[in-house]
Amino acid sequence: MINVGVLGATGAVGQRFVQLLANHPWFNLTTLTASERSAGKTYGSVVNWRLDSPFPESVGELVVSPTTVDAVKDCDIVFSAMPADIATKLESDIADAGVGVCSNASSHRMTEDVPLMIAEVNPEHAALIDVQREKRDGFIVTNPNCSTIMLATALAPLRKFEFTNINVATMQAISGAGFDGVPAFGIYDNVIPYIGGEEEKMAREANKILGTFENGKITGAPFTVSASCNRVPVIDGHTLNVWIDVKASVDEVIDAFKTWEAPFKGLPTQPEKSVLYLDDDNRPQPRLDRNRGNGMTVSVGRVREGIRFVAMGHNTIRGAAGASVLNAELLHTLKYI
Amino acid sequence: MINVGVLGATGAVGQRFVQLLANHPWFNLTTLTASERSAGKTYGSVVNWRLDSPFPESVGELVVSPTTVDAVKDCDIVFSAMPADIATKLESDIADAGVGVCSNASSHRMTEDVPLMIAEVNPEHAALIDVQREKRDGFIVTNPNCSTIMLATALAPLRKFEFTNINVATMQAISGAGFDGVPAFGIYDNVIPYIGGEEEKMAREANKILGTFENGKITGAPFTVSASCNRVPVIDGHTLNVWIDVKASVDEVIDAFKTWEAPFKGLPTQPEKSVLYLDDDNRPQPRLDRNRGNGMTVSVGRVREGIRFVAMGHNTIRGAAGASVLNAELLHTLKYI
Amino acid sequence: MINVGVLGATGAVGQRFVQLLANHPWFNLTTLTASERSAGKTYGSVVNWRLDSPFPESVGELVVSPTTVDAVKDCDIVFSAMPADIATKLESDIADAGVGVCSNASSHRMTEDVPLMIAEVNPEHAALIDVQREKRDGFIVTNPNCSTIMLATALAPLRKFEFTNINVATMQAISGAGFDGVPAFGIYDNVIPYIGGEEEKMAREANKILGTFENGKITGAPFTVSASCNRVPVIDGHTLNVWIDVKASVDEVIDAFKTWEAPFKGLPTQPEKSVLYLDDDNRPQPRLDRNRGNGMTVSVGRVREGIRFVAMGHNTIRGAAGASVLNAELLHTLKYI
Amino acid sequence: MINVGVLGATGAVGQRFVQLLANHPWFNLTTLTASERSAGKTYGSVVNWRLDSPFPESVGELVVSPTTVDAVKDCDIVFSAMPADIATKLESDIADAGVGVCSNASSHRMTEDVPLMIAEVNPEHAALIDVQREKRDGFIVTNPNCSTIMLATALAPLRKFEFTNINVATMQAISGAGFDGVPAFGIYDNVIPYIGGEEEKMAREANKILGTFENGKITGAPFTVSASCNRVPVIDGHTLNVWIDVKASVDEVIDAFKTWEAPFKGLPTQPEKSVLYLDDDNRPQPRLDRNRGNGMTVSVGRVREGIRFVAMGHNTIRGAAGASVLNAELLHTLKYI
Repeated sequence: MINVGVLGATGAVGQRFVQLLANHPWFNLTTLTASERSAGKTYGSVVNWRLDSPFPESVGELVVSPTTVDAVKDCDIVFSAMPADIATKLESDIADAGVGVCSNASSHRMTEDVPLMIAEVNPEHAALIDVQREKRDGFIVTNPNCSTIMLATALAPLRKFEFTNINVATMQAISGAGFDGVPAFGIYDNVIPYIGGEEEKMAREANKILGTFENGKITGAPFTVSASCNRVPVIDGHTLNVWIDVKASVDEVIDAFKTWEAPFKGLPTQPEKSVLYLDDDNRPQPRLDRNRGNGMTVSVGRVREGIRFVAMGHNTIRGAAGASVLNAELLHTLKYI
Repeated sequence: MINVGVLGATGAVGQRFVQLLANHPWFNLTTLTASERSAGKTYGSVVNWRLDSPFPESVGELVVSPTTVDAVKDCDIVFSAMPADIATKLESDIADAGVGVCSNASSHRMTEDVPLMIAEVNPEHAALIDVQREKRDGFIVTNPNCSTIMLATALAPLRKFEFTNINVATMQAISGAGFDGVPAFGIYDNVIPYIGGEEEKMAREANKILGTFENGKITGAPFTVSASCNRVPVIDGHTLNVWIDVKASVDEVIDAFKTWEAPFKGLPTQPEKSVLYLDDDNRPQPRLDRNRGNGMTVSVGRVREGIRFVAMGHNTIRGAAGASVLNAELLHTLKYI
Repeated sequence: MINVGVLGATGAVGQRFVQLLANHPWFNLTTLTASERSAGKTYGSVVNWRLDSPFPESVGELVVSPTTVDAVKDCDIVFSAMPADIATKLESDIADAGVGVCSNASSHRMTEDVPLMIAEVNPEHAALIDVQREKRDGFIVTNPNCSTIMLATALAPLRKFEFTNINVATMQAISGAGFDGVPAFGIYDNVIPYIGGEEEKMAREANKILGTFENGKITGAPFTVSASCNRVPVIDGHTLNVWIDVKASVDEVIDAFKTWEAPFKGLPTQPEKSVLYLDDDNRPQPRLDRNRGNGMTVSVGRVREGIRFVAMGHNTIRGAAGASVLNAELLHTLKYI
Repeated sequence: MINVGVLGATGAVGQRFVQLLANHPWFNLTTLTASERSAGKTYGSVVNWRLDSPFPESVGELVVSPTTVDAVKDCDIVFSAMPADIATKLESDIADAGVGVCSNASSHRMTEDVPLMIAEVNPEHAALIDVQREKRDGFIVTNPNCSTIMLATALAPLRKFEFTNINVATMQAISGAGFDGVPAFGIYDNVIPYIGGEEEKMAREANKILGTFENGKITGAPFTVSASCNRVPVIDGHTLNVWIDVKASVDEVIDAFKTWEAPFKGLPTQPEKSVLYLDDDNRPQPRLDRNRGNGMTVSVGRVREGIRFVAMGHNTIRGAAGASVLNAELLHTLKYI
């Protein structure tokens, strides 16, 4: 068994990590960290469980550790739900101490020797770990920002065609900002047409994810992403309207969506279909489709000339914790863990 | 005084018309039509007043007429909130009977001799009425579809630059489908990425509105509009994310938005600013900005390189009834009424 | 195996029935009825599946029958999701034809020889079937109205005390009115303080459910229920604020809630806890607690002197289809089926 | 002119005060206080105006003061939107310094010599100020908690009957907790059946408001209030379901609601009807009725035997700032200001 821990186990993404890891077939969840105030108490007694699936009783008695390198140095991997300002140094130190860090934080996503991975999309980038290991015993691997994950996953089937510019409008769910991140008075009966830093992240992260690994680094893909990001009154599930300058017809694009397969099968958190084409006029919709593949499937539809299409996925599972856990599962099959 | 009527006075758009006309300085609201079932009863006794402004008592005692040509033939103008399937013949017949029809319905928007107008944007298209009058005593004038109005109004200040392709993602409010048009179970905690016919309407209507009137007809503008229309959980106010291929810098576009003025001033329903530039990071927002200019101002903001920007306006006032009433006011100053 | 059918399989309650019966360990779902328009086609091709759990593929190929006595006469039981106006005669005729009808409709709830049952609360009322069978080969058994189910289930543990008057304010979910029953424009950012007929149903149904079966009929319980029913912007889950004139202290009531057990165990649809006491200050909450016990648990909390408490349960599972299926499972153990 | 100030001018209640006082016929708004961080800057540059009515430009250039006694000692009255923990000492000190404090905070509501007033309901309690002035030059007057205001105002017409116990379930709007008080993730698609301290406040405040002023103090009214308070997904407007043990028939209660008149007329912020009876089945509703009387009218309806009825009012206008401003207007007519 592989011993794993979660950094920041009580917040929105942390609780998702716990939910996915509590009874994992490969990973043994041994360590949960949180604030000093919670350290030393049982997880069940400190967490305000806010997910709509039941609290996983098996972790209720785990004693919470403070969020320090020391607390996790005996883990094989830690999954990080830390905010970026803390993650930068903490994750480096933990990786230097020999632990593998699978991080949802934005801090190291663009670092040259850190893979920015969606397991089914760019598994070959895992090889960057070898480069990273020249300087440390452990490693950091990151998953992208939630809306970038939906975009890049939906683009994977289209990589066989040439494409250049992408325009994308996002309609992002409330949970993406954490449990208390969006006041109800701000978003109810409203659209907030701005999410700080999101448009820039989508652009640079998408280029790295779909870039080429050669000569020990990633050469970013040459397409541009021009994004407009919005918060809408939806609890979970980010919806994207995409325009892509691609040399393919509507039928070719639909066929690509239908036939594309992930380069591997059967990882515990992997859905049957990473990309699922829905041919109803008015799909995908977040409330109806976000739980497909246990929240790991990115649904696509409404392919029209332009080429325009709609993509949607669960932002805290596929878009955050689930992506990170799937990365770890991949790394295990590739023997990095 | 100019005697006016409202066709279909009890629905969502009909009630907006009544609200705007009940105490109008130029128009005398003499006639309200509705179904056979309501005809003969007072408006106050049949209408289920659903707007968040108080019922205009002055019209409470008006006796409702059936929706026939006969009922309105003594009006100078009628404002039509009829659904398209009924509007096609009814509006023709009323116009043939010598009445001016200002219609919110989609039926005649693309008819060759019918102006498709946003008063401040293409007032010169009113001259098409002269062409129409060759064949009938009255006339039909239409206002565009709600999201097209927001788009075309926001584009007016940019017409001095060259522009070609436009991509636009809309996030449209619930009220746009009528009081009962969108079931709560369908839209709550959800996004519906499809509004039937909307994307096509935006494309063709925008071309006509911004087209050139010459030789007795409108030659459509040459730019393309590629739209993706969504319904979101917002009561009033359509938000647009626009990408426009325009030969101008961000600063030039902002300046155009700030300095553009309507070609006329002071019509009763005309807002002080038809297009209002907001420079906050996270504006415009529907709940905060939809009532600007009494619901007649289109707010724009978030201008970024691309060129990208966000536009937002009240969909049943600026986007429907208000647009129609303002058209009628313009036609009065141009002596068509 | 017991062959079962669903009357009205495409609506909100009908889809819940199908979800619960599709892979039932005791019941073999052989027949689905819907409108004439859908009859003869496969269920998968006619149903607009709106639940947030995946479509049960095993029923996709079932050919839909018209809603007639003939279509279901070979079933052992049918579950009825029919609207009351149709249910009255239809269910009678089906029961007369020898089939057992477990109905969610309101039509026969107050009929003298028809049990009105919540399986764990008044299983002894099943004996009314013997009375019914004096006049027909089959039978009708009904489950109560959704909010009545929450109230009466929460009252079951308190029956050991004396209680008289009950005041109850309900906050009912959107789904209770069917998929299209509540327009978004009506309920979004709003409370509708009226649900037609609901307050009266709660009063009379609660008296019958908690009444005594003797001499071949039910003598209603003597307490009064004074209800105020509201619709709120919640998708699923009815919340009740209850005041009950009961001779017990707060601690005695909490203890009753904690220790009460259903009179039987282990039916397939039966939850581990039919009544679950939550001791958090701010629980139960519909979004967090409605799925407990697979939607069959009624959660209670906030017991205060008065006696006041809060109860909440899933309105289309515990409050409708699930209650009916559990009734049928009970009747099977009692050999009525 | 009477010079007034607002303590805490940038929050939810503070902005309401500013909106109501900006162009007041009797009061000259000279002073706005906020945090140290905002002090010295113009109000327009520091406030994040969140109300759906336009920013009152006349106050944009007012320089913000720090929240100190010194900053407001030259005001005749200050309106306090301070949180309770700060209000306790601050308001006392300001009153001791000779200023009249009209406070929305809870700190001094139950203080023996402080009136707890709803202007139209218990204006005679203003005489407590004479008692207070034995110990200080200024005074403190408070308005009640938002839901208490709705309840007590609705009870005013019923005071001519005898009544004893009241049960009340509240469905309270999001804005009541301030702009950022309720996270969207917590309340969207949900009911939170707990608002800390609210049930207790309703009970004791209602008794004081409807109590008798004699011998220099208030003897609380003898009825009991047993409340259950809930937060629901509504932006503005608290809805109450009330049960009142009153010796009156339904018709007598309706007649009382219809005919009751405030003991005075014509104060600037006073609505035409402080209590308005609506006889529709499904009214009052917050979104439709909260703006009646410019947000100062309490609407009542659904009177049924029990006696049960529904009351609803705007929680930040009638329920907070508006109540306080109306109190000040009354005190001016009574020459306390």
